[in-house]
Amino acid sequence: MHKEQHVTSSETIRDIVIGMSDGLTVPFALAAGLSGAISSSALVVTAGIAEIVAGSIAMGLGGYLAGKTEADHYRSELKREFEEVELLPEQEKAEVKEVFAAFGLSEALQQQIADELAKDKKQWVDFMMRYELGLEEPDANRATKSAITIGISYIIGGVIPLSPYIFIEQAQQALYYSCGLTLICLFVFGYFKSKMTGQPPLSGAFKVVVIGTLAAGAAFLMAKLITGK
Amino acid sequence: MHKEQHVTSSETIRDIVIGMSDGLTVPFALAAGLSGAISSSALVVTAGIAEIVAGSIAMGLGGYLAGKTEADHYRSELKREFEEVELLPEQEKAEVKEVFAAFGLSEALQQQIADELAKDKKQWVDFMMRYELGLEEPDANRATKSAITIGISYIIGGVIPLSPYIFIEQAQQALYYSCGLTLICLFVFGYFKSKMTGQPPLSGAFKVVVIGTLAAGAAFLMAKLITGK
Repeated sequence: MHKEQHVTSSETIRDIVIGMSDGLTVPFALAAGLSGAISSSALVVTAGIAEIVAGSIAMGLGGYLAGKTEADHYRSELKREFEEVELLPEQEKAEVKEVFAAFGLSEALQQQIADELAKDKKQWVDFMMRYELGLEEPDANRATKSAITIGISYIIGGVIPLSPYIFIEQAQQALYYSCGLTLICLFVFGYFKSKMTGQPPLSGAFKVVVIGTLAAGAAFLMAKLITGK
Repeated sequence: MHKEQHVTSSETIRDIVIGMSDGLTVPFALAAGLSGAISSSALVVTAGIAEIVAGSIAMGLGGYLAGKTEADHYRSELKREFEEVELLPEQEKAEVKEVFAAFGLSEALQQQIADELAKDKKQWVDFMMRYELGLEEPDANRATKSAITIGISYIIGGVIPLSPYIFIEQAQQALYYSCGLTLICLFVFGYFKSKMTGQPPLSGAFKVVVIGTLAAGAAFLMAKLITGK
């Protein structure tokens, strides 16, 4: 169905955007901040990898929990609607009519729709869930898919800014390469993200770069401030 | 309206859950990992605060971008529906009928609904947006609210596991207090989160503690592995 595809793809894109924009930014900023305080890349790499592991698991499981909560919420509302249709059919019919009154349909037509819908309780409840409460039945694998998508996006994003520190011993020197590499990747990420969601790609790429720079810059300055260097 | 409240509160809860569960977990895990590699709490605090600053800005701005993308997506679909209603009215009427065919309404009633809806183009498009595409008009301040909610939740969550390192000079010793404090907070957070979303609070609290422990444990082991300690 047309609609389902819409929802799924925009949720997956949302997950990738959440995971990758944080993955590109947080380990980048952390490594930059530490570079101002210590000179050895080895410790920067240790902290960076610990951050990537913790961040990907925490964000992935955060996505999993959020998806699970959504599914549980849907189930409890579904149960309530089935009870209401059984116990208060007239009130539920009035609610169906309200939905169509909001779109300016005539009273007679509202009544006809309510009567026809009420013939099949399963379809009646489906209608109430989607059109009165605005709840879509969540994809059964949504929580797991969301967890994996966010987690992997975070790891991919996080390894990029950290890689120069693995190869260059001097942290301050690695920082320059990390900045250059990460800004290019933020630009490419922003470009494709905008293209996929139908936004103007160049201005979208620019926005992502500015935001990444802001976050990393703030973390860098904060680390400098604390260590007084 | 009943429905709007549903959507807003569950989105805010989702934002708080995302921000706070990561805030409690990632700085906790990072600090624990570093405690295995270095003995001075000062550097742990520097890295932790750099992480909290970067994380809250990156996650907040990530939420902002996601909200903006959703709003832009809605606007571009809205424009397309207005064009389609103008250029292909018969096709759009057929799509209205499909929506109701799915709920088992009769062909005659489907036609009547389509004809009445078509009388007012604004309401016709509203109907298509919500019921064919399943898109709600996003709250205009959604992106900003989401950014602030996630960012602040992350900071509050992150300061908790880091606080023992501020007061105790020996990182390994601070780690014990950090573990105790964070596990208690994860439990309390999980309890109220579950209560607010109508889930069983005790099993919800237990889940959050297990997940936090898993993420922190993985980061700790990874840091140990890298430094060979």
